[in-house]
Amino acid sequence: MSKAAGRVEASIGYRFKDASLLTTALTHRSANQRQHNERLEFLGDALLNFLIAERVYHERATDDEGDLSRLRSTLVRGVTLADIATELSLGDSLILGAGELRSGGHRRRSILADALEALLGAIYLDGGIEAAEKVVEQLFARRLLALPDASLLKDPKTRLQEWLQARGLPLPVYEVVEVSGEEHAQHFRVECRVQRPERSFTGEGPGRRQAEQQAAMQALDVLVGGPDAS
Amino acid sequence: MSKAAGRVEASIGYRFKDASLLTTALTHRSANQRQHNERLEFLGDALLNFLIAERVYHERATDDEGDLSRLRSTLVRGVTLADIATELSLGDSLILGAGELRSGGHRRRSILADALEALLGAIYLDGGIEAAEKVVEQLFARRLLALPDASLLKDPKTRLQEWLQARGLPLPVYEVVEVSGEEHAQHFRVECRVQRPERSFTGEGPGRRQAEQQAAMQALDVLVGGPDAS
Repeated sequence: MSKAAGRVEASIGYRFKDASLLTTALTHRSANQRQHNERLEFLGDALLNFLIAERVYHERATDDEGDLSRLRSTLVRGVTLADIATELSLGDSLILGAGELRSGGHRRRSILADALEALLGAIYLDGGIEAAEKVVEQLFARRLLALPDASLLKDPKTRLQEWLQARGLPLPVYEVVEVSGEEHAQHFRVECRVQRPERSFTGEGPGRRQAEQQAAMQALDVLVGGPDAS
Repeated sequence: MSKAAGRVEASIGYRFKDASLLTTALTHRSANQRQHNERLEFLGDALLNFLIAERVYHERATDDEGDLSRLRSTLVRGVTLADIATELSLGDSLILGAGELRSGGHRRRSILADALEALLGAIYLDGGIEAAEKVVEQLFARRLLALPDASLLKDPKTRLQEWLQARGLPLPVYEVVEVSGEEHAQHFRVECRVQRPERSFTGEGPGRRQAEQQAAMQALDVLVGGPDAS
Protein backbone atom coordinates (compact mmCIF):
# COMPACT_ATOMS: atom_id res chain seq x y z
CA MET A 1 0.00 0.00 0.00
CA SER A 2 1.44 3.32 -1.06
CA LYS A 3 1.58 6.36 1.19
CA ALA A 4 -0.94 8.15 -1.04
CA ALA A 5 -3.41 5.28 -0.80
CA GLY A 6 -3.12 5.19 2.99
CA ARG A 7 -3.75 8.94 3.12
CA VAL A 8 -6.94 8.57 1.10
CA GLU A 9 -8.16 5.73 3.31
CA ALA A 10 -7.60 7.85 6.41
CA SER A 11 -9.41 10.85 4.94
CA ILE A 12 -12.53 8.90 3.92
CA GLY A 13 -12.55 6.59 6.93
CA TYR A 14 -12.60 3.39 4.90
CA ARG A 15 -9.94 0.70 4.58
CA PHE A 16 -9.93 -1.33 1.37
CA LYS A 17 -9.75 -5.11 1.44
CA ASP A 18 -8.65 -5.08 -2.21
CA ALA A 19 -6.07 -2.29 -2.53
CA SER A 20 -6.00 -2.57 -6.32
CA LEU A 21 -9.53 -1.13 -6.47
CA LEU A 22 -8.31 1.97 -4.67
CA THR A 23 -5.35 2.28 -7.02
CA THR A 24 -7.61 2.02 -10.06
CA ALA A 25 -9.97 4.66 -8.62
CA LEU A 26 -7.06 7.08 -8.25
CA THR A 27 -5.64 6.44 -11.74
CA HIS A 28 -6.43 8.93 -14.47
CA ARG A 29 -6.43 7.60 -18.00
CA SER A 30 -3.43 9.83 -18.79
CA ALA A 31 -1.33 7.57 -16.54
CA ASN A 32 -2.61 4.22 -17.73
CA GLN A 33 -4.72 3.75 -20.83
CA ARG A 34 -5.74 0.22 -19.85
CA GLN A 35 -6.37 0.41 -16.12
CA HIS A 36 -7.90 3.80 -15.28
CA ASN A 37 -10.83 5.04 -13.23
CA GLU A 38 -13.49 5.75 -15.86
CA ARG A 39 -15.50 2.55 -15.46
CA LEU A 40 -15.49 2.98 -11.68
CA GLU A 41 -16.58 6.57 -12.20
CA PHE A 42 -19.59 5.34 -14.19
CA LEU A 43 -20.57 3.02 -11.36
CA GLY A 44 -19.85 5.56 -8.61
CA ASP A 45 -21.86 8.26 -10.35
CA ALA A 46 -24.95 6.03 -10.48
CA LEU A 47 -24.43 4.93 -6.89
CA LEU A 48 -24.04 8.48 -5.60
CA ASN A 49 -27.11 9.65 -7.49
CA PHE A 50 -29.11 6.91 -5.84
CA LEU A 51 -27.76 7.37 -2.32
CA ILE A 52 -28.32 11.11 -2.42
CA ALA A 53 -31.79 10.63 -3.95
CA GLU A 54 -32.65 8.39 -1.03
CA ARG A 55 -31.35 10.86 1.54
CA VAL A 56 -33.17 13.78 -0.04
CA TYR A 57 -36.35 11.67 -0.28
CA HIS A 58 -36.30 11.02 3.47
CA GLU A 59 -35.06 14.46 4.55
CA ARG A 60 -37.79 16.25 2.62
CA ALA A 61 -40.92 14.26 3.24
CA THR A 62 -43.26 16.83 1.69
CA ASP A 63 -41.24 18.21 -1.23
CA ASP A 64 -42.46 17.25 -4.67
CA GLU A 65 -40.46 15.35 -7.27
CA GLY A 66 -39.19 18.52 -8.98
CA ASP A 67 -37.90 19.92 -5.69
CA LEU A 68 -36.21 16.63 -4.79
CA SER A 69 -34.56 16.55 -8.17
CA ARG A 70 -33.23 20.09 -7.83
CA LEU A 71 -31.97 19.44 -4.30
CA ARG A 72 -30.14 16.34 -5.45
CA SER A 73 -28.57 18.26 -8.33
CA THR A 74 -26.98 20.76 -5.98
CA LEU A 75 -25.31 17.88 -4.13
CA VAL A 76 -24.09 15.68 -6.97
CA ARG A 77 -23.04 18.30 -9.52
CA GLY A 78 -19.41 18.57 -10.50
CA VAL A 79 -18.61 21.70 -8.52
CA THR A 80 -19.81 20.13 -5.27
CA LEU A 81 -17.87 16.92 -5.90
CA ALA A 82 -14.73 18.87 -6.75
CA ASP A 83 -15.11 20.86 -3.52
CA ILE A 84 -15.41 17.68 -1.48
CA ALA A 85 -12.43 16.11 -3.30
CA THR A 86 -10.44 19.25 -2.49
CA GLU A 87 -11.43 19.09 1.18
CA LEU A 88 -10.10 15.52 1.18
CA SER A 89 -6.87 16.63 -0.58
CA LEU A 90 -7.64 13.92 -3.11
CA GLY A 91 -5.54 15.70 -5.73
CA ASP A 92 -2.32 14.85 -3.86
CA SER A 93 -3.03 11.15 -4.27
CA LEU A 94 -4.08 11.03 -7.93
CA ILE A 95 -2.03 8.99 -10.35
CA LEU A 96 -1.63 11.15 -13.45
CA GLY A 97 0.34 11.00 -16.69
CA ALA A 98 3.36 13.24 -17.14
CA GLY A 99 1.48 15.75 -19.30
CA GLU A 100 -1.40 16.11 -16.84
CA LEU A 101 1.04 16.41 -13.95
CA ARG A 102 2.90 19.26 -15.63
CA SER A 103 -0.28 21.12 -16.52
CA GLY A 104 -1.67 20.89 -12.97
CA GLY A 105 -4.11 18.02 -13.54
CA HIS A 106 -4.19 17.19 -9.83
CA ARG A 107 -5.97 20.50 -9.28
CA ARG A 108 -8.30 20.26 -12.30
CA ARG A 109 -11.83 20.22 -10.96
CA SER A 110 -13.30 17.77 -13.46
CA ILE A 111 -10.51 15.28 -12.71
CA LEU A 112 -11.12 15.67 -8.99
CA ALA A 113 -14.89 15.21 -9.29
CA ASP A 114 -14.47 12.13 -11.49
CA ALA A 115 -11.94 10.60 -9.08
CA LEU A 116 -14.31 11.08 -6.14
CA GLU A 117 -17.07 9.24 -8.01
CA ALA A 118 -14.62 6.48 -8.94
CA LEU A 119 -13.60 6.19 -5.30
CA LEU A 120 -17.22 5.68 -4.28
CA GLY A 121 -17.64 3.04 -6.98
CA ALA A 122 -14.53 1.26 -5.68
CA ILE A 123 -15.79 1.34 -2.09
CA TYR A 124 -19.07 -0.17 -3.25
CA LEU A 125 -17.33 -3.04 -5.04
CA ASP A 126 -15.01 -3.59 -2.10
CA GLY A 127 -17.38 -3.25 0.83
CA GLY A 128 -20.94 -3.29 -0.47
CA ILE A 129 -23.66 -0.70 -0.30
CA GLU A 130 -23.55 -0.20 3.48
CA ALA A 131 -19.87 0.76 3.34
CA ALA A 132 -20.49 3.17 0.47
CA GLU A 133 -23.49 4.64 2.23
CA LYS A 134 -21.47 5.29 5.37
CA VAL A 135 -18.76 7.13 3.46
CA VAL A 136 -21.29 9.19 1.50
CA GLU A 137 -23.10 10.13 4.73
CA GLN A 138 -19.85 11.35 6.18
CA LEU A 139 -18.61 13.21 3.09
CA PHE A 140 -21.94 14.95 2.51
CA ALA A 141 -23.02 15.41 6.15
CA ARG A 142 -22.51 19.15 6.35
CA ARG A 143 -24.10 19.77 2.95
CA LEU A 144 -27.08 17.56 3.75
CA LEU A 145 -27.68 19.57 6.91
CA ALA A 146 -27.41 22.84 5.03
CA LEU A 147 -29.77 21.96 2.18
CA PRO A 148 -31.53 25.10 1.03
CA ASP A 149 -35.26 25.52 0.81
CA ALA A 150 -36.17 23.83 -2.47
CA SER A 151 -38.15 26.79 -3.75
CA LEU A 152 -35.02 28.94 -3.76
CA LEU A 153 -33.45 26.60 -6.30
CA LYS A 154 -36.06 27.43 -8.91
CA ASP A 155 -35.10 29.98 -11.50
CA PRO A 156 -36.51 33.51 -11.17
CA LYS A 157 -39.00 33.18 -14.07
CA THR A 158 -40.54 30.08 -12.51
CA ARG A 159 -40.65 31.68 -9.06
CA LEU A 160 -42.29 34.83 -10.43
CA GLN A 161 -44.86 32.79 -12.33
CA GLU A 162 -45.71 30.67 -9.28
CA TRP A 163 -45.93 33.73 -7.04
CA LEU A 164 -48.39 35.41 -9.42
CA GLN A 165 -50.41 32.22 -9.96
CA ALA A 166 -50.74 31.63 -6.23
CA ARG A 167 -52.37 35.06 -6.00
CA GLY A 168 -54.61 34.55 -9.02
CA LEU A 169 -52.80 37.37 -10.89
CA PRO A 170 -52.15 37.47 -14.66
CA LEU A 171 -48.85 36.02 -15.86
CA PRO A 172 -45.99 38.29 -16.91
CA VAL A 173 -45.20 39.07 -20.54
CA TYR A 174 -41.59 39.12 -21.72
CA GLU A 175 -40.47 41.12 -24.74
CA VAL A 176 -37.07 41.68 -26.28
CA VAL A 177 -36.73 45.45 -26.57
CA GLU A 178 -33.19 45.64 -27.91
CA VAL A 179 -30.55 43.42 -29.46
CA SER A 180 -27.14 44.97 -29.97
CA GLY A 181 -23.62 43.82 -30.81
CA GLU A 182 -22.13 41.61 -33.50
CA GLU A 183 -23.63 38.21 -34.21
CA HIS A 184 -21.09 36.33 -32.09
CA ALA A 185 -21.35 38.74 -29.17
CA GLN A 186 -24.95 39.83 -28.98
CA HIS A 187 -26.46 41.65 -26.07
CA PHE A 188 -30.17 41.40 -25.23
CA ARG A 189 -32.39 43.75 -23.33
CA VAL A 190 -35.73 42.31 -22.26
CA GLU A 191 -38.75 43.83 -20.60
CA CYS A 192 -40.90 41.87 -18.18
CA ARG A 193 -44.37 43.37 -17.84
CA VAL A 194 -46.69 42.55 -14.96
CA GLN A 195 -50.34 43.68 -15.11
CA ARG A 196 -51.20 43.99 -11.44
CA PRO A 197 -49.64 46.13 -10.18
CA GLU A 198 -48.89 47.50 -13.63
CA ARG A 199 -45.12 47.59 -13.67
CA SER A 200 -42.32 46.72 -16.01
CA PHE A 201 -38.82 45.50 -15.24
CA THR A 202 -35.74 45.29 -17.41
CA GLY A 203 -33.06 42.64 -17.64
CA GLU A 204 -29.95 42.37 -19.78
CA GLY A 205 -27.60 39.62 -20.81
CA PRO A 206 -25.73 37.81 -23.59
CA GLY A 207 -28.81 35.73 -24.41
CA ARG A 208 -32.54 36.20 -24.41
CA ARG A 209 -33.00 33.66 -21.64
CA GLN A 210 -30.48 35.26 -19.32
CA ALA A 211 -32.01 38.69 -19.91
CA GLU A 212 -35.49 37.33 -19.13
CA GLN A 213 -34.27 35.70 -15.92
CA GLN A 214 -32.67 38.94 -14.83
CA ALA A 215 -35.87 40.88 -15.54
CA ALA A 216 -37.87 38.32 -13.55
CA MET A 217 -35.38 38.67 -10.68
CA GLN A 218 -35.97 42.44 -10.68
CA ALA A 219 -39.71 41.84 -10.60
CA LEU A 220 -39.36 39.40 -7.69
CA ASP A 221 -37.21 41.84 -5.75
CA VAL A 222 -39.82 44.54 -6.03
CA LEU A 223 -43.05 42.51 -5.87
CA VAL A 224 -42.11 39.93 -3.27
CA GLY A 225 -39.28 41.42 -1.33
CA GLY A 226 -39.59 45.16 -1.75
CA PRO A 227 -41.72 47.90 -0.23
CA ASP A 228 -44.27 47.56 -3.07
CA ALA A 229 -45.07 43.99 -2.05
CA SER A 230 -48.79 43.44 -1.89
CA MET B 1 -55.64 -5.51 -0.26
CA SER B 2 -57.48 -4.81 -3.50
CA LYS B 3 -57.64 -7.26 -6.38
CA ALA B 4 -55.52 -4.95 -8.53
CA ALA B 5 -52.79 -4.79 -5.90
CA GLY B 6 -52.72 -8.56 -5.56
CA ARG B 7 -52.42 -8.90 -9.32
CA VAL B 8 -49.40 -6.59 -9.36
CA GLU B 9 -47.73 -8.48 -6.54
CA ALA B 10 -48.19 -11.75 -8.39
CA SER B 11 -46.80 -10.34 -11.63
CA ILE B 12 -43.62 -8.92 -10.06
CA GLY B 13 -43.12 -11.75 -7.57
CA TYR B 14 -42.98 -9.51 -4.52
CA ARG B 15 -45.40 -9.23 -1.61
CA PHE B 16 -45.53 -5.90 0.22
CA LYS B 17 -45.37 -5.73 3.99
CA ASP B 18 -46.80 -2.21 3.82
CA ALA B 19 -49.64 -2.31 1.28
CA SER B 20 -50.04 1.48 1.34
CA LEU B 21 -46.69 1.82 -0.43
CA LEU B 22 -48.01 -0.28 -3.30
CA THR B 23 -51.19 1.77 -3.46
CA THR B 24 -49.20 5.01 -3.61
CA ALA B 25 -46.97 3.60 -6.36
CA LEU B 26 -50.03 2.82 -8.48
CA THR B 27 -51.70 6.20 -7.90
CA HIS B 28 -51.37 8.81 -10.64
CA ARG B 29 -51.62 12.42 -9.53
CA SER B 30 -54.86 12.79 -11.52
CA ALA B 31 -56.52 10.52 -8.93
CA ASN B 32 -55.07 12.04 -5.79
CA GLN B 33 -53.24 15.35 -5.71
CA ARG B 34 -51.82 14.70 -2.25
CA GLN B 35 -50.85 11.05 -2.27
CA HIS B 36 -49.57 10.09 -5.71
CA ASN B 37 -46.58 8.23 -7.09
CA GLU B 38 -44.25 11.02 -8.21
CA ARG B 39 -41.94 11.02 -5.19
CA LEU B 40 -41.64 7.23 -5.39
CA GLU B 41 -40.91 7.60 -9.10
CA PHE B 42 -38.01 9.93 -8.27
CA LEU B 43 -36.58 7.37 -5.89
CA GLY B 44 -37.24 4.40 -8.18
CA ASP B 45 -35.65 6.12 -11.15
CA ALA B 46 -32.41 6.66 -9.23
CA LEU B 47 -32.49 3.13 -7.86
CA LEU B 48 -33.08 1.56 -11.27
CA ASN B 49 -30.30 3.63 -12.84
CA PHE B 50 -27.92 2.36 -10.21
CA LEU B 51 -28.97 -1.29 -10.32
CA ILE B 52 -28.76 -1.40 -14.11
CA ALA B 53 -25.43 0.45 -14.06
CA GLU B 54 -24.10 -2.21 -11.72
CA ARG B 55 -25.37 -5.06 -13.89
CA VAL B 56 -23.95 -3.53 -17.07
CA TYR B 57 -20.64 -2.86 -15.29
CA HIS B 58 -20.29 -6.54 -14.41
CA GLU B 59 -21.72 -7.97 -17.64
CA ARG B 60 -19.35 -5.94 -19.79
CA ALA B 61 -16.01 -6.13 -18.07
CA THR B 62 -14.06 -4.56 -20.93
CA ASP B 63 -16.46 -1.94 -22.29
CA ASP B 64 -15.49 1.65 -21.67
CA GLU B 65 -17.53 4.20 -19.77
CA GLY B 66 -19.24 5.55 -22.89
CA ASP B 67 -20.35 2.08 -23.96
CA LEU B 68 -21.63 1.27 -20.47
CA SER B 69 -23.58 4.48 -20.45
CA ARG B 70 -25.19 3.78 -23.83
CA LEU B 71 -26.05 0.22 -22.83
CA ARG B 72 -27.69 1.41 -19.66
CA SER B 73 -29.69 4.01 -21.58
CA THR B 74 -31.28 1.36 -23.78
CA LEU B 75 -32.51 -0.43 -20.64
CA VAL B 76 -33.78 2.46 -18.53
CA ARG B 77 -35.29 4.72 -21.17
CA GLY B 78 -39.02 5.37 -21.18
CA VAL B 79 -39.88 3.10 -24.10
CA THR B 80 -38.26 0.08 -22.45
CA LEU B 81 -39.95 0.77 -19.12
CA ALA B 82 -43.33 1.20 -20.82
CA ASP B 83 -42.82 -2.12 -22.63
CA ILE B 84 -42.05 -3.91 -19.37
CA ALA B 85 -45.03 -2.26 -17.66
CA THR B 86 -47.21 -3.45 -20.54
CA GLU B 87 -45.88 -7.00 -20.24
CA LEU B 88 -46.87 -6.85 -16.56
CA SER B 89 -50.35 -5.48 -17.48
CA LEU B 90 -49.58 -2.71 -15.00
CA GLY B 91 -52.04 -0.41 -16.74
CA ASP B 92 -54.99 -2.48 -15.49
CA SER B 93 -54.00 -1.76 -11.90
CA LEU B 94 -53.29 1.96 -12.09
CA ILE B 95 -55.37 4.33 -10.04
CA LEU B 96 -56.24 7.24 -12.32
CA GLY B 97 -58.48 10.28 -12.18
CA ALA B 98 -61.71 10.33 -14.17
CA GLY B 99 -60.26 12.46 -16.96
CA GLU B 100 -57.21 10.24 -17.45
CA LEU B 101 -59.40 7.15 -17.34
CA ARG B 102 -61.65 8.47 -20.09
CA SER B 103 -58.73 9.48 -22.29
CA GLY B 104 -57.00 6.10 -21.99
CA GLY B 105 -54.39 7.07 -19.39
CA HIS B 106 -53.91 3.45 -18.35
CA ARG B 107 -52.38 2.84 -21.76
CA ARG B 108 -50.33 6.06 -21.94
CA ARG B 109 -46.70 5.03 -22.13
CA SER B 110 -45.25 7.80 -19.98
CA ILE B 111 -47.74 7.00 -17.20
CA LEU B 112 -46.83 3.31 -17.43
CA ALA B 113 -43.08 3.97 -17.34
CA ASP B 114 -43.44 6.33 -14.37
CA ALA B 115 -45.58 3.82 -12.48
CA LEU B 116 -43.00 1.09 -12.99
CA GLU B 117 -40.28 3.31 -11.54
CA ALA B 118 -42.55 4.20 -8.63
CA LEU B 119 -43.21 0.51 -8.03
CA LEU B 120 -39.46 -0.15 -7.79
CA GLY B 121 -39.08 2.76 -5.38
CA ALA B 122 -41.86 1.31 -3.24
CA ILE B 123 -40.28 -2.16 -3.21
CA TYR B 124 -37.00 -0.61 -2.09
CA LEU B 125 -38.66 1.22 0.80
CA ASP B 126 -40.63 -1.87 1.76
CA GLY B 127 -38.04 -4.61 1.38
CA GLY B 128 -34.63 -2.99 1.00
CA ILE B 129 -32.14 -3.09 -1.82
CA GLU B 130 -31.94 -6.90 -2.07
CA ALA B 131 -35.67 -7.15 -2.69
CA ALA B 132 -35.56 -4.41 -5.31
CA GLU B 133 -32.52 -6.00 -6.95
CA LYS B 134 -34.30 -9.33 -7.22
CA VAL B 135 -37.34 -7.81 -8.90
CA VAL B 136 -35.19 -5.78 -11.31
CA GLU B 137 -33.18 -8.89 -12.21
CA GLN B 138 -36.37 -10.70 -13.03
CA LEU B 139 -38.06 -7.86 -14.96
CA PHE B 140 -34.97 -7.11 -17.03
CA ALA B 141 -33.61 -10.66 -17.36
CA ARG B 142 -34.42 -11.17 -21.02
CA ARG B 143 -33.21 -7.71 -21.99
CA LEU B 144 -29.98 -8.07 -20.01
CA LEU B 145 -29.25 -11.31 -21.86
CA ALA B 146 -29.99 -9.69 -25.22
CA LEU B 147 -27.85 -6.59 -24.71
CA PRO B 148 -26.49 -5.51 -28.09
CA ASP B 149 -22.85 -4.99 -28.87
CA ALA B 150 -22.12 -1.54 -27.46
CA SER B 151 -20.56 -0.28 -30.69
CA LEU B 152 -23.88 -0.68 -32.49
CA LEU B 153 -25.44 1.88 -30.18
CA LYS B 154 -23.20 4.64 -31.42
CA ASP B 155 -24.64 6.98 -34.00
CA PRO B 156 -23.63 6.46 -37.65
CA LYS B 157 -21.36 9.54 -37.83
CA THR B 158 -19.35 8.35 -34.84
CA ARG B 159 -19.15 4.80 -36.17
CA LEU B 160 -18.00 6.00 -39.60
CA GLN B 161 -15.35 8.23 -38.04
CA GLU B 162 -14.04 5.43 -35.82
CA TRP B 163 -14.01 2.96 -38.69
CA LEU B 164 -11.94 5.33 -40.85
CA GLN B 165 -9.62 6.28 -37.97
CA ALA B 166 -8.94 2.64 -37.15
CA ARG B 167 -7.71 2.23 -40.73
CA GLY B 168 -5.65 5.43 -40.77
CA LEU B 169 -7.93 6.92 -43.43
CA PRO B 170 -8.87 10.62 -43.77
CA LEU B 171 -12.05 11.72 -42.00
CA PRO B 172 -15.24 12.39 -43.97
CA VAL B 173 -16.40 15.86 -44.94
CA TYR B 174 -20.08 16.80 -44.63
CA GLU B 175 -21.66 19.54 -46.70
CA VAL B 176 -25.21 20.81 -46.95
CA VAL B 177 -25.99 20.75 -50.66
CA GLU B 178 -29.61 21.84 -50.51
CA VAL B 179 -32.10 23.38 -48.13
CA SER B 180 -35.68 23.53 -49.29
CA GLY B 181 -39.11 24.22 -47.79
CA GLU B 182 -40.54 26.99 -45.64
CA GLU B 183 -38.73 28.12 -42.51
CA HIS B 184 -40.87 26.02 -40.16
CA ALA B 185 -40.66 22.89 -42.36
CA GLN B 186 -37.19 22.86 -43.85
CA HIS B 187 -35.69 19.91 -45.61
CA PHE B 188 -31.93 19.33 -45.74
CA ARG B 189 -29.85 17.38 -48.21
CA VAL B 190 -26.30 16.68 -47.11
CA GLU B 191 -23.36 15.10 -48.86
CA CYS B 192 -20.79 13.00 -46.98
CA ARG B 193 -17.53 12.75 -48.89
CA VAL B 194 -14.91 10.12 -48.14
CA GLN B 195 -11.45 10.40 -49.71
CA ARG B 196 -10.35 6.79 -49.86
CA PRO B 197 -12.05 5.24 -51.68
CA GLU B 198 -13.23 8.51 -53.21
CA ARG B 199 -16.97 8.28 -52.82
CA SER B 200 -19.81 10.50 -51.81
CA PHE B 201 -23.06 9.62 -50.10
CA THR B 202 -26.25 11.60 -49.68
CA GLY B 203 -28.60 11.88 -46.74
CA GLU B 204 -31.83 13.84 -46.26
CA GLY B 205 -33.90 14.94 -43.33
CA PRO B 206 -35.76 17.72 -41.53
CA GLY B 207 -32.53 18.93 -39.90
CA ARG B 208 -28.90 19.14 -40.83
CA ARG B 209 -27.92 16.63 -38.17
CA GLN B 210 -30.43 14.01 -39.25
CA ALA B 211 -29.37 14.40 -42.89
CA GLU B 212 -25.71 13.98 -41.89
CA GLN B 213 -26.48 10.84 -39.90
CA GLN B 214 -28.36 9.37 -42.81
CA ALA B 215 -25.48 10.13 -45.19
CA ALA B 216 -23.05 8.50 -42.76
CA MET B 217 -25.31 5.45 -42.58
CA GLN B 218 -25.19 5.16 -46.38
CA ALA B 219 -21.40 5.37 -46.23
CA LEU B 220 -21.23 2.67 -43.54
CA ASP B 221 -23.50 0.39 -45.54
CA VAL B 222 -21.25 0.62 -48.57
CA LEU B 223 -17.81 0.85 -46.93
CA VAL B 224 -18.24 -1.58 -44.06
CA GLY B 225 -21.04 -3.87 -45.08
CA GLY B 226 -21.20 -3.73 -48.85
CA PRO B 227 -19.24 -5.31 -51.69
CA ASP B 228 -16.91 -2.28 -51.84
CA ALA B 229 -15.65 -2.97 -48.32
CA SER B 230 -11.87 -2.87 -48.21
